[in-house]
Amino acid sequence: MTSLQLSAKEEMVERFLDAAARGDLTQVSTLLSNAASLINETGYSGWTALMFAARNGHYHVVEALLSHGCDKFSVNSSSHTAFDIAKFWGHRHISDLLGRTDDRCQRVLPGSDLNQHENYFNRETLDRLAVKRTDKVWLEAKQNNPDTVYLLFSNLSPMVNSSQEDDNARVETKLCRFRYEAVKELLEKPATVLIFLGVEKRKKPSSSSSKTEDGVQEPPAWFAISTNEDPAALLKLCREKNCSFPKLPNRDLLKFSEEEAGVVAQARSTLAWHDRYSFCPTCGSSTKLEEGGYKRSCLNSDCRSLKGVHSTCYPQVCPVVIMLVIHPDGNQCLLGRKKIFPAGMFSCLAGFIEPGEAIEEAVRREVEEESGVKVGPVQYVSCQPWPMPSNLMIGCMAVAISTDIKVDENEIEEARWFPRQQVIDSLCRGASPAFFVPPRQTIAHQLIKHWIGMNSNL
Amino acid sequence: MTSLQLSAKEEMVERFLDAAARGDLTQVSTLLSNAASLINETGYSGWTALMFAARNGHYHVVEALLSHGCDKFSVNSSSHTAFDIAKFWGHRHISDLLGRTDDRCQRVLPGSDLNQHENYFNRETLDRLAVKRTDKVWLEAKQNNPDTVYLLFSNLSPMVNSSQEDDNARVETKLCRFRYEAVKELLEKPATVLIFLGVEKRKKPSSSSSKTEDGVQEPPAWFAISTNEDPAALLKLCREKNCSFPKLPNRDLLKFSEEEAGVVAQARSTLAWHDRYSFCPTCGSSTKLEEGGYKRSCLNSDCRSLKGVHSTCYPQVCPVVIMLVIHPDGNQCLLGRKKIFPAGMFSCLAGFIEPGEAIEEAVRREVEEESGVKVGPVQYVSCQPWPMPSNLMIGCMAVAISTDIKVDENEIEEARWFPRQQVIDSLCRGASPAFFVPPRQTIAHQLIKHWIGMNSNL
Ligand SMILES: [Zn+2]
Ligand SMILES: [Zn+2]
Repeated sequence: MTSLQLSAKEEMVERFLDAAARGDLTQVSTLLSNAASLINETGYSGWTALMFAARNGHYHVVEALLSHGCDKFSVNSSSHTAFDIAKFWGHRHISDLLGRTDDRCQRVLPGSDLNQHENYFNRETLDRLAVKRTDKVWLEAKQNNPDTVYLLFSNLSPMVNSSQEDDNARVETKLCRFRYEAVKELLEKPATVLIFLGVEKRKKPSSSSSKTEDGVQEPPAWFAISTNEDPAALLKLCREKNCSFPKLPNRDLLKFSEEEAGVVAQARSTLAWHDRYSFCPTCGSSTKLEEGGYKRSCLNSDCRSLKGVHSTCYPQVCPVVIMLVIHPDGNQCLLGRKKIFPAGMFSCLAGFIEPGEAIEEAVRREVEEESGVKVGPVQYVSCQPWPMPSNLMIGCMAVAISTDIKVDENEIEEARWFPRQQVIDSLCRGASPAFFVPPRQTIAHQLIKHWIGMNSNL
Repeated sequence: MTSLQLSAKEEMVERFLDAAARGDLTQVSTLLSNAASLINETGYSGWTALMFAARNGHYHVVEALLSHGCDKFSVNSSSHTAFDIAKFWGHRHISDLLGRTDDRCQRVLPGSDLNQHENYFNRETLDRLAVKRTDKVWLEAKQNNPDTVYLLFSNLSPMVNSSQEDDNARVETKLCRFRYEAVKELLEKPATVLIFLGVEKRKKPSSSSSKTEDGVQEPPAWFAISTNEDPAALLKLCREKNCSFPKLPNRDLLKFSEEEAGVVAQARSTLAWHDRYSFCPTCGSSTKLEEGGYKRSCLNSDCRSLKGVHSTCYPQVCPVVIMLVIHPDGNQCLLGRKKIFPAGMFSCLAGFIEPGEAIEEAVRREVEEESGVKVGPVQYVSCQPWPMPSNLMIGCMAVAISTDIKVDENEIEEARWFPRQQVIDSLCRGASPAFFVPPRQTIAHQLIKHWIGMNSNL
């Protein structure tokens, strides 16, 4: 689109919004019949035609816009819907018209829909059904159930099936799924760790699911198995070709569909905990696995960890802050690189939250420690579980209040202010060997995109 | 304030904003001379007089408002300052006038200042100076330094000094502070755990601080000591009266000043980690304390935890979600109570984040597990370290998309929808024995206040 086209379009949007604000039903209708795409266009502060009409009490324009299928749930940059605006200004006939709906989330928590990011590893495909973890009878019945799905892990890697998927030579990785019969023997080995992952989230009952005694259909359960048996022998369990246990989690675990990535995050991080927490940290004794794989109890009956509820007995999640720091001029962002990064790759700074520290304080401390840059305001954006081994990446935007960089060479090799345009070029025109950012599956990538999108709204 | 007064005030605000929007300098000045407090009043969507004047290009009104000391950094509910608005509408002479400042955070990260909550336990009084944790020579010099401050912990309780402070019989608790001479012997006991907390954050050098070789003054360092010596003997180390080791952390640790609370959070949660993680979870061997108390290394030289960086060696922080769930009607919130709560107390629901789970998903899962209520949009509000023993409470607002309550009796005793007015009454008129919420030091309290404040903006 040339700048001339853009400006002509802008002019049309302005006329349309103006007509709605003045209550000029004829012009609103004429413009819409010429260009139906105008309907949800926004002007200053994200105001739509519907909002202007609602603001000024033009009932018939509101009606016309609704009949043309406008989005009545869209919010302006104050997070208000047209309904909110009509109500505020006392146009009850309009707010009644707009309020006929069950989707009231926007009114209850303004802006809440705007902030629903979904990062890779975030999707919960399964209902974890934690209440069943202590139900041994139920768990055992599920284990033997022919509908149950088993995933197989060796050395914290899931067995996957990789295939050249399309003309672009993108490789998609799928989890190998097993039935009870295939893994029955593995389940009996003493070194096997078994995790109950949950049951499939399902709205309608399907014919493939099993029935309980009272005839209610239950969706299939999923388990993860970790075994130290010979990987080559394990691969023979699968009937598919091209199966493997990938070696590089930071690369290979980013190739799943969104649905499978969520399951992998849950399974791998829980198994990684078992791998590192086999012994009771409080007394050093051995532990036994309980509650569907979500608890390890000390075998020393005198141990303090058996009195009351102790965090030592449950899978550990390590909270990490990861932040995109923006230059005070608003036009540059701070990215750094570790020695282990591929050449040319820069990412957001990040670090573990310490005891007694708030998220925002951890952001300030880490940025100053790693880069010497002082940070003022901090804003949470979204988060991402990162199962290498079991981190929760808490993604924030932050504003620098100083600009001189002095890197802590133990932490990072280099940190630089990158101009906005250079970042946009890298994201839009493809990575250059001299500068690129982590792939889309990472929250670092999403924070950078968020920054670029966010500022363009101003 | 009666409703009559309120409405008179509202009318005056409206006239003032209107005058600013019209560029009526005379009326703006007259109204301000009658009621100076009008200056930062806001109308719909948080617009101030300054914003209206900036929007409509009234340079002299902007000047007058600035000379009357209006807050030029305040933002409307679109998170825009008057500067943003002037710039957007192309009034460059006004944006130049408003932009003469170094505080550009609002422009770089709109809304960032609105969201800076400070909860109890959040304040970082000390600079943790993590880089010094591996500098044994520096740490040892600080230990012997006469300016260094030591806190004493017994059974995870800090020694405190409590006094009846004022006529309202409020009890303020202060940390007992010790010098090197007083704790020298304790430091030599093998069971003593010593944590380097950091150095005082200080802008100007003070005469009381020590000088390094090159004459630069360094602020005092703080350490926490945990000892299993007889508490009665320890209390004699302090010269003050009314010293004690409080017994009920959930009550007694909420009585510090904001400054001391932050230090307590850091010290207690790190010490609690040492208390529970004395043994290597990976192999069960004993461990030794390193890095100023922020690392425990396995003494078994074959242990996997010694290869690479392992989370098992560092203080654990447990991320917890705590959420105020709002009814779809926007006028009720969901609160629950555990059996161990004092009678009449209800609080926000909460629960640990599981491996592979995002914050928002953990909110949905926990609310449904505990109360049977389904949750839609979730919004992060603020967080709070909670050093009992080492949690990070991540506070969210959430919107329910179902309303039937079915509590999980293993988790909570009761959950109810509380009408907004009942919650306001409880907060404003004081607790009733039938219904009250946790004290202001808790993030639950702050979330509830946030809800009430937030909705009143609509
Ligand atoms: Zn034990
Ligand atoms: Zn070990």
